[in-house]
Amino acid sequence: MFKKILYPTDFSDVAYKVLDFIVQLKTAGTKEVLLLHVIDQRDVYNMEQHTARWTDISQVRKAWDREISGAMDSIADELTEAGLKVTQLVVCGIPFDSILQAEDEEDVSLTVIGSHGKSNIEEMLLGSVSEKVIRKSQKPVIVIKR
Amino acid sequence: MFKKILYPTDFSDVAYKVLDFIVQLKTAGTKEVLLLHVIDQRDVYNMEQHTARWTDISQVRKAWDREISGAMDSIADELTEAGLKVTQLVVCGIPFDSILQAEDEEDVSLTVIGSHGKSNIEEMLLGSVSEKVIRKSQKPVIVIKR
Repeated sequence: MFKKILYPTDFSDVAYKVLDFIVQLKTAGTKEVLLLHVIDQRDVYNMEQHTARWTDISQVRKAWDREISGAMDSIADELTEAGLKVTQLVVCGIPFDSILQAEDEEDVSLTVIGSHGKSNIEEMLLGSVSEKVIRKSQKPVIVIKR
Repeated sequence: MFKKILYPTDFSDVAYKVLDFIVQLKTAGTKEVLLLHVIDQRDVYNMEQHTARWTDISQVRKAWDREISGAMDSIADELTEAGLKVTQLVVCGIPFDSILQAEDEEDVSLTVIGSHGKSNIEEMLLGSVSEKVIRKSQKPVIVIKR
């Protein structure tokens, strides 16, 4: 029932708390983790609009990709060391939408998500991406609290 | 990590789907289930207000209690047969509030809840009790979809 887990991460504190939880899920029968990072297409647009004209955008984008790739590899290493099979997936889109699409296309058993993302506003009891995933997911969702 | 589970039920279809999930959780290490039903205090008030004057309210209440007790026993039997230790708890209160109180006082590992309760309105992607529990819980919550 926990065989293949979808683990979306935005590299926030709560997302790393989810990582600890997933490592423990191995004892519950988890074999495989689909590690997903969604590059928010609105952030890409904003970066392109607000980067000074004389800057080479492709260089900015490359640095960005390197940073994501490093963070993904380090999470994947931790999962692999715990004995889990990991598939990395980086896509550009609207986060909640891409998470639901991955959940559907990759036929995961369930999704484990943090209650909050990077914009961890104290007054919000649930982050907006998490809320949309919980509402719209067709599969069970485990919500890890901040 | 799944040792002691809080399972709140309002005897709705989705709550019975949660039951099937919890039975499977045994293979993930679940030993003990706290089976909770909250009698909504607003329903009790409404019943008392709208019951005809010549009816003995205590009799109505007794019939109600018998019905709840039968439903709880039948769920508990299913969990016991699956090899799980079950504690039944019936309280009168505001559902989400009593669920959060039980979660806190009984020191459960996590809560498994259905996405919808009895008022399973098609347009609503998440029931109001589930939504409040997910938002306010201090522990991980597994949401089982309708």
